[in-house]
Amino acid sequence: MSAPSSLDELIAALRCLPGVGPRSAQRMAYHLLQHDRKGAARLAGALERSLAVLRHCGRCNAFSEEDVCARCANPRRDPGRLCVVETPADLAMIEQTQSYDGLYYVLMGRLSPLDGIGPRELELDRLIARACDGAVREVILATNFTNEGEATAHTIAALLGARGLTVSRLSRGVPVGGELEHTDMGTIAQALAERRAL
Amino acid sequence: MSAPSSLDELIAALRCLPGVGPRSAQRMAYHLLQHDRKGAARLAGALERSLAVLRHCGRCNAFSEEDVCARCANPRRDPGRLCVVETPADLAMIEQTQSYDGLYYVLMGRLSPLDGIGPRELELDRLIARACDGAVREVILATNFTNEGEATAHTIAALLGARGLTVSRLSRGVPVGGELEHTDMGTIAQALAERRAL
Repeated sequence: MSAPSSLDELIAALRCLPGVGPRSAQRMAYHLLQHDRKGAARLAGALERSLAVLRHCGRCNAFSEEDVCARCANPRRDPGRLCVVETPADLAMIEQTQSYDGLYYVLMGRLSPLDGIGPRELELDRLIARACDGAVREVILATNFTNEGEATAHTIAALLGARGLTVSRLSRGVPVGGELEHTDMGTIAQALAERRAL
Repeated sequence: MSAPSSLDELIAALRCLPGVGPRSAQRMAYHLLQHDRKGAARLAGALERSLAVLRHCGRCNAFSEEDVCARCANPRRDPGRLCVVETPADLAMIEQTQSYDGLYYVLMGRLSPLDGIGPRELELDRLIARACDGAVREVILATNFTNEGEATAHTIAALLGARGLTVSRLSRGVPVGGELEHTDMGTIAQALAERRAL
């Protein structure tokens, strides 16, 4: 005698969530059915609505309910600067700093040859078309400082530099509030090499 | 400029899942929308179908699509033995051993006074009614060997013993394949106290 088929199917379906294995999926299914049927109904509705209305903004490639998202359509943002990030989460982090009023382009990933993600899969030609719209003066590369993020930044810099655009990269160094004693050696070496005049 | 409202709502709805905080919910939402829209649609459907068809078996209290689940309705299982577990996951573990052919009762929880879960919240009267159906000869308590599981077992044993039923408990001791050197002291002390004649 196995579990009811609808329960099995729910457990299997929950495994589409990243980081959720068979045990977590089972725990989630039992929790929802036993303790949070309202939350489960809300989740089902939110999934359906998101799938129906969310697509990619034609300009910045972030998720949007419109062809061009509100951020890209905002006339108070500087169209001369374009910040390239890997994910919408990275974009949200930069927005939270309230220190940037230019526009964005979200790669929705990074170059990762081992996973078969090259310039074509990342659709870098769309980024190039966006950056060469005539209004963009500077492209700020804000991909992660991981190996893959750095490789992505270098590839994009080469592609855009060849088209005469100014390309910059977030600075590396000791974090604000950081103590040298507790900073890793690689970061200290970078901060030394990229020291700036006072 | 914030994220589209349907995306915000999806992220908020994902937090109904146990162990999912704001960061994981964001990551899950981006993953589903970017890489697994099919999985998201499947999950929405599975949630809706489960909510529509799953309820509790009137006999064993496990999730079921019928009033009485297939396991309780199976005439080849011994109606004289009733195994009491905390969750459907525990039931599944015992079934996997293929060493038990009696019936079950799933508490869907455990006594936990600190969380306000007493005998009434756990509906122990339903278990008593089930165990006193005349067919059950022995009740096997298979709640966890945690403090709360032990307290639950003792409470149930007192209630059912007063009604003249034979009540047993899973044995405690050194796990199969276990080495004394790597077994905790409490378990060894139990195994000594509950040693059995050969």
